[in-house]
Amino acid sequence: MNYSYLSHLSCPKCGTEYSAETIQQLCTCGSPLLVNYHLDLVKSVLTKEEVSQRENSLWKYHELLPVENPDNIVSMGEGMTPLLKTDRIGRKLGIGHLLMKDEGLIPTGSFKARGAAVGISKAKELGVKTFAMPTNGNAGAAWSLYAARAGIVPYIIMPLDAPLITRKETAISGANLHLIDGLISDAGKVVAQLVGEEGFYDASTLKEPYRIEGKKTMGYEIAEQLNWTVPDVILYPTGGGVGIIGIYKALLELQELGWISKDKLPRLVAVQAEGCAPIVKAFEEGKMESEFWENSQTDAFGINVPKAIGDFLVLQGIYDTNGCAIAVSEKEIHAEQSQAAKLEGCFICPEGAATFAAARLLRERNWIKEDETVVCLNTGQGIKYPETVRAEAPLLRKGEMLKL
Amino acid sequence: MNYSYLSHLSCPKCGTEYSAETIQQLCTCGSPLLVNYHLDLVKSVLTKEEVSQRENSLWKYHELLPVENPDNIVSMGEGMTPLLKTDRIGRKLGIGHLLMKDEGLIPTGSFKARGAAVGISKAKELGVKTFAMPTNGNAGAAWSLYAARAGIVPYIIMPLDAPLITRKETAISGANLHLIDGLISDAGKVVAQLVGEEGFYDASTLKEPYRIEGKKTMGYEIAEQLNWTVPDVILYPTGGGVGIIGIYKALLELQELGWISKDKLPRLVAVQAEGCAPIVKAFEEGKMESEFWENSQTDAFGINVPKAIGDFLVLQGIYDTNGCAIAVSEKEIHAEQSQAAKLEGCFICPEGAATFAAARLLRERNWIKEDETVVCLNTGQGIKYPETVRAEAPLLRKGEMLKL
Repeated sequence: MNYSYLSHLSCPKCGTEYSAETIQQLCTCGSPLLVNYHLDLVKSVLTKEEVSQRENSLWKYHELLPVENPDNIVSMGEGMTPLLKTDRIGRKLGIGHLLMKDEGLIPTGSFKARGAAVGISKAKELGVKTFAMPTNGNAGAAWSLYAARAGIVPYIIMPLDAPLITRKETAISGANLHLIDGLISDAGKVVAQLVGEEGFYDASTLKEPYRIEGKKTMGYEIAEQLNWTVPDVILYPTGGGVGIIGIYKALLELQELGWISKDKLPRLVAVQAEGCAPIVKAFEEGKMESEFWENSQTDAFGINVPKAIGDFLVLQGIYDTNGCAIAVSEKEIHAEQSQAAKLEGCFICPEGAATFAAARLLRERNWIKEDETVVCLNTGQGIKYPETVRAEAPLLRKGEMLKL
Repeated sequence: MNYSYLSHLSCPKCGTEYSAETIQQLCTCGSPLLVNYHLDLVKSVLTKEEVSQRENSLWKYHELLPVENPDNIVSMGEGMTPLLKTDRIGRKLGIGHLLMKDEGLIPTGSFKARGAAVGISKAKELGVKTFAMPTNGNAGAAWSLYAARAGIVPYIIMPLDAPLITRKETAISGANLHLIDGLISDAGKVVAQLVGEEGFYDASTLKEPYRIEGKKTMGYEIAEQLNWTVPDVILYPTGGGVGIIGIYKALLELQELGWISKDKLPRLVAVQAEGCAPIVKAFEEGKMESEFWENSQTDAFGINVPKAIGDFLVLQGIYDTNGCAIAVSEKEIHAEQSQAAKLEGCFICPEGAATFAAARLLRERNWIKEDETVVCLNTGQGIKYPETVRAEAPLLRKGEMLKL
């Protein structure tokens, strides 16, 4: 038995194949590369029952991950996050089976840890010593901390407006951190220059093929946690879109393995903020790619991505599953964040709140039916964005008692 | 089979027994009460092998927890946090097997979630509608969020200086939050008044018997994660001390069940900050109780507890296991917090960092031996205390490139 059944890399746009034994970035055609496995061999050596008995981390799916030598794994216990019932919100929304995949319970407090764990482990296996990446905050923090554990040197370029906590996480890891007075797209230009001049590994979203493999494990876990079935709808807050691409890839792999039925896939929903909704615009216009969104703005900083390099893969996943893309307002995001805490005890991040806002709109339009099973993806903890929450409270002087 | 094998409550000081079927607070003698189980029955119906195969949450130990009807469980997936290898710190310290129990991967980002999950679930079972508690931040946040999920109304009194993020968590839950210009001991007086005048349930540390049952599961998990053995040393950052009391109780219960050897217990170490070290002072003077620590001060806010109501139980656990109590400086705490991020990729809280500082000191004194297995308990995420970390970084103007 191999630890991994990694086969090769391939381009979803032009079909060119690449070796997975050496460092690869984008395809020569400019598209991200996807990872292929010997699924037929996995099918013959591994059962879903065996997987279900393994330790609770995303590495339980190691045959379907790209790291070939377990010694290269850099792990802090990431994966198998809870799939929580959110019945009280469900009743308010009129959705019979509303669940939340809570990616707050993961190292660094955001789902970016999945991409970082697999991405850094594979980078270590490939001999990477230094990498550069632009980030809206959480990814930079996660990649910096996993890099510290791996002994790899990161150069991180982060917008000045990114959440302060993610800046602190990145700084304490010892990463080479630079701030930029601009957006993630401006940070990306600095990274491109560094990669070009210094020969650093480019860890930008989808410019290395392995981050998506970490993110796809959310799809495996949702299926496993639903006893190897799939929900009717999965709502995903979409910035770079790696998670939704990964979840779709994972579900197709599970079908190929025969671990879930070939008759049903969940309808995938890309949720964006009204202030930055390039995927939604493309979807509404029936296009296969998005256009750069000028002057983007949202408190849900993780989805402030004006143009995603993998936009065509996101849109393909939506079209193929009869899903949709939908934008929600800042007001709706804040209302759902507050409601999730008050009704379910879950202090979720604004990006996660956006998925509940979208579920509400889609139920109102009857796009989501009353008896459907719906999974909202909360991509991280609310405590990473304290500035989005107000906390006024009466003050007692020392010795003063409270009168009700 | 019962879901719980709860028997009764008993006073560790005077021996008085109480029913666990009705609300109880302190013993009439003023001591906290402990929970007893029919361990002989558990032994006859449950094996450790069966427990190991169950879902990964602290509720896997439900026979040994006080909630009798599973419908009363209020859960957000808490428990079975990672027991991580921290080899690179271990090499620096000269400790052969250094591990960190990472309580950051839990709802609300701190180990207070364990006490809250079990405490709130049992409160719900007992019909509690309203409770009051003083808090240094994390406990108030956790109890407020779990209370929101349970539909119970909390009154929380928190020092003005408590970490701002915990104030925001408490506020967003909808709890009745009041700040006080004083310490947790001042907050405690307000709670005592509320409890007396309004008849609220008193959820102050150890004034209800069930928080400790949640915390004790850390002891079960450490043993299970070490394949039902115990480490040589466990270091615990000690404020109220509920965790160390709980871990000790758990290990005695596991011995009684025959799931771990009766020949060995870990040496329990209570770690405090030099600016608030009442337990250390009592230990050094060979006393069984501590004295109120005047003008206490430490950045590790969770262990700024000048006098713990359960101090005698903490000291008993230390004495019985040939453990010790040790104080560390603020400088040492900050150095270890930084080192954990740079060497292991773990952004731990100051309280957790204190345990690494203590491990270093105890190794230097040869109190910890080179080949021993040592567990440091990180009680929460560093991101909950962003003000303890500086994050200066160079700023690039938009369009400016980076020169190395």
